[in-house]
Amino acid sequence: MASRDLEQALSSIDAMEARRYALRYALVSAEWLAETADPEKAAPGRGEAVAGLEEMDREVLCGAEMGAALDVLEAHREGLGLKDAARLRVLGRDRSEQTRIPNELAGAMSRAVNDATMAWRRAKRDNDWGVFAPHLDAVVALCRRQAACLDPGRDPYDVLLDLYEPGCDQAFYDRFFERVRACVVPLAERVAAAPQPSRACVAGAFDPDRQWALARDLALFEGVDPEKLVMGRTEHPFSDGIDSGHVFIATHIYEDDVLSNVFSVLHEGGHAMYEAGVDPEFDRTCLAGGTSMGMHEAQSRFFENYVGRSRAFAGPLLAAMASHFPEKLEGVTAGDLYRAENRVEPSLVRTEADELTYPLHVMVRYEVEKGLLSGELAAADVPAAWGRLYREYLGVEVPDDRRGALQDIHWSQASIGYFPTYALGGAYGAQLLHAMTADLAAGGTPFDDVLASGDLVPVRAWLGDRVWRWGRSKEPRRIVEEACGEEFDPDYYCDYLERKFGELYGL
Amino acid sequence: MASRDLEQALSSIDAMEARRYALRYALVSAEWLAETADPEKAAPGRGEAVAGLEEMDREVLCGAEMGAALDVLEAHREGLGLKDAARLRVLGRDRSEQTRIPNELAGAMSRAVNDATMAWRRAKRDNDWGVFAPHLDAVVALCRRQAACLDPGRDPYDVLLDLYEPGCDQAFYDRFFERVRACVVPLAERVAAAPQPSRACVAGAFDPDRQWALARDLALFEGVDPEKLVMGRTEHPFSDGIDSGHVFIATHIYEDDVLSNVFSVLHEGGHAMYEAGVDPEFDRTCLAGGTSMGMHEAQSRFFENYVGRSRAFAGPLLAAMASHFPEKLEGVTAGDLYRAENRVEPSLVRTEADELTYPLHVMVRYEVEKGLLSGELAAADVPAAWGRLYREYLGVEVPDDRRGALQDIHWSQASIGYFPTYALGGAYGAQLLHAMTADLAAGGTPFDDVLASGDLVPVRAWLGDRVWRWGRSKEPRRIVEEACGEEFDPDYYCDYLERKFGELYGL
Repeated sequence: MASRDLEQALSSIDAMEARRYALRYALVSAEWLAETADPEKAAPGRGEAVAGLEEMDREVLCGAEMGAALDVLEAHREGLGLKDAARLRVLGRDRSEQTRIPNELAGAMSRAVNDATMAWRRAKRDNDWGVFAPHLDAVVALCRRQAACLDPGRDPYDVLLDLYEPGCDQAFYDRFFERVRACVVPLAERVAAAPQPSRACVAGAFDPDRQWALARDLALFEGVDPEKLVMGRTEHPFSDGIDSGHVFIATHIYEDDVLSNVFSVLHEGGHAMYEAGVDPEFDRTCLAGGTSMGMHEAQSRFFENYVGRSRAFAGPLLAAMASHFPEKLEGVTAGDLYRAENRVEPSLVRTEADELTYPLHVMVRYEVEKGLLSGELAAADVPAAWGRLYREYLGVEVPDDRRGALQDIHWSQASIGYFPTYALGGAYGAQLLHAMTADLAAGGTPFDDVLASGDLVPVRAWLGDRVWRWGRSKEPRRIVEEACGEEFDPDYYCDYLERKFGELYGL
Repeated sequence: MASRDLEQALSSIDAMEARRYALRYALVSAEWLAETADPEKAAPGRGEAVAGLEEMDREVLCGAEMGAALDVLEAHREGLGLKDAARLRVLGRDRSEQTRIPNELAGAMSRAVNDATMAWRRAKRDNDWGVFAPHLDAVVALCRRQAACLDPGRDPYDVLLDLYEPGCDQAFYDRFFERVRACVVPLAERVAAAPQPSRACVAGAFDPDRQWALARDLALFEGVDPEKLVMGRTEHPFSDGIDSGHVFIATHIYEDDVLSNVFSVLHEGGHAMYEAGVDPEFDRTCLAGGTSMGMHEAQSRFFENYVGRSRAFAGPLLAAMASHFPEKLEGVTAGDLYRAENRVEPSLVRTEADELTYPLHVMVRYEVEKGLLSGELAAADVPAAWGRLYREYLGVEVPDDRRGALQDIHWSQASIGYFPTYALGGAYGAQLLHAMTADLAAGGTPFDDVLASGDLVPVRAWLGDRVWRWGRSKEPRRIVEEACGEEFDPDYYCDYLERKFGELYGL
């Protein structure tokens, strides 16, 4: 039986979580407007406002009332239900992280990010690394201070990696990337030597207004609930979520590259469905949202690649595209589209990379981040290191920083340690795909038949049950283990890539 | 010399105002998204979030720290600069209002508004007053409680009217509306008996995408800074502002009524320029933003009517429209446009009303609000009263509630007492127009020449100097008196209407 103390503590936690929800609502809204709508002169005020809202959230999370309430829960740990036990664990971890960061550092970080993001935009527009470099040095220095506050005895990059994917450090990623590289590099070389499929079927100009209508249709087609969805346009596609009833997708539209928009939407839709699929019981608590960046990316890459770029789904996808562009796609077959969307081509821009060489782009960033955090690289050295690594991993020459080290927004947002989760997510997803395929086959509805039907209900149901609904109440490794019945194993990812690209290129 | 106490109090007020700014940033962003983007299922969470953010703001404004700091300022009143003296006055008044509202009532109001707004949308869509009526009764009851908390000895509607326009009560508005009605009703009758100008020159379908491009051009043309502006589409046009660097305009686009979009944008642009024109020194303080609803409306109606619907500006306006619709407007003259945009036609919908009969729409709402607050009318009685008043004031029959008592969002947002400021703003604006015209003529640049040139710099400079830059640091009546050199006088409004429509209709 719950004691009166426990009841009071839970009610106090509910009230504090409601307050944190209001602040999160505000921060997600401000970020959405920043990326999709805000004018230039809004930036300084937004920086102050975001810093203020984040500070208010820290006050709730790190305050004495939260500490006292969590102490009461801890004392009654044995009697807590699953939800409250998970809240105790997650709030406790978030609080322990945040209380180690002094207010002054948090405020400095928030303002540095706002300045760095503005500088990054200008630098990218003008192809001028020098505009961004001092901001990157400042952000790295603050990240190092942050890591030292969180765990002074540990390697700072290990501390940051753990923030984005609990339990992952350089030793883990070094092994993981070694395994992936051993598969991808020789495979990409064999692919490069084989005849290349044509992209002619999707070449040429696709009207931007009709692409915008297609974008919304695709998001709904893959399964995003239209009554929960806000869509917008931006430079760098992203998604976000406030609670299970309110999610955001921003895409970009290039007139001469319709596939970029198509796969951006399928990707961001995967993220959005994860956010929307969390148990509504967890709304307005710390358990809402995805459990880690890697698990989030597993969902987005699942819909982008394992569904979206599959042979079986090419038919329904072509039909959806042709309903907006009948004259452009007349005579195009599902096979044409499948080959075009899977053409492997070592390239410069991560977000536009093919599925096979994508993890190599991530490894470049991982190596640069290691160098920045260890102090081996200063911001001024990054373009040269970037060029060397692209040459080594992908065999391409980087012609300018706009298509080089300035292409991604992440470092300007102090998201250092985030990139590796993009590749890890692909590997989580491949393992989930393997387990789902077995389950669906056992249930008499083979995965490929589901995709070919265009009705993805069984796919969403499986992921919803094994991954989405748990929100942050389970750690990512535990999600994988319970969904798949075994530990995380990157071989599933490598096997998938070898099979798919081996068949496609007749190797 | 400022004492150490005073310095500390001012620094504490700065910190609290920074926090209130962050919360205001959040609330404006949430409201903007609610009206321009949010999906259906976002509403319940948004209601909770908005209530939480408002509560946090109340805690700062009504808390002990604010009280102590204001007491210190009060003790040093004689030594304060203009800005700090104004902050003391404005924060003191806001605090005194808010501290009289119990938290429970504020929360209930916030939630009732969220529910009522959703119900109003459904009711308007389905033309079903019954869906909205219980929500209106609930909102009125809460407004009555609010008024009783603020000033228990005073008539509740007088208390509410004062919130929107300081110093205005029913006695004031009764006199004002009597004066306006004595002018407008007989004038409208004479106009109705005269030959009507044609609207053929702007009839027919105008492509929505091109109207959208025109909307942005018009906002910039009248003078909104593009580096401060966010634009969006909505059902009910509105504008908002966060600080002098960040303003919002939402318009609606009807394919078969291009003028609706044109004048909505010019109107909302006037509001936006007021917000953007406040002294940047007042950013992130209680002095940012417009001084009252009436003074805000004076700016919007200035650009909508005194600039936008003038004979002199018809040339530049036609040119701007023709640049987007050359084929539609071929052969149309500025005179054609001037007559079309000023055709008087007693009608059903306030926001689409002509300039002359507009104040009659406001008077209908004023009478209904009086009845609701006094208890003479229940929500269920409103449609009948509405129909009777439209028949009496405008001579039109109301065919359904969608074009009747459900047309405006205001009551669902508990904005009772707001409508009268719309007519008052027109009258403030006419007096400002009179003074500006004299000043410009004295300076050798007659007002009509400025409008005909299409370059509105002198108009914006005059309003910027006399009205905009002062923000909330001066009361509206003082703004009028200092800008015009005399007390508020509604005769300027009536004279303007008689002259303009007398000439136009050859009376």
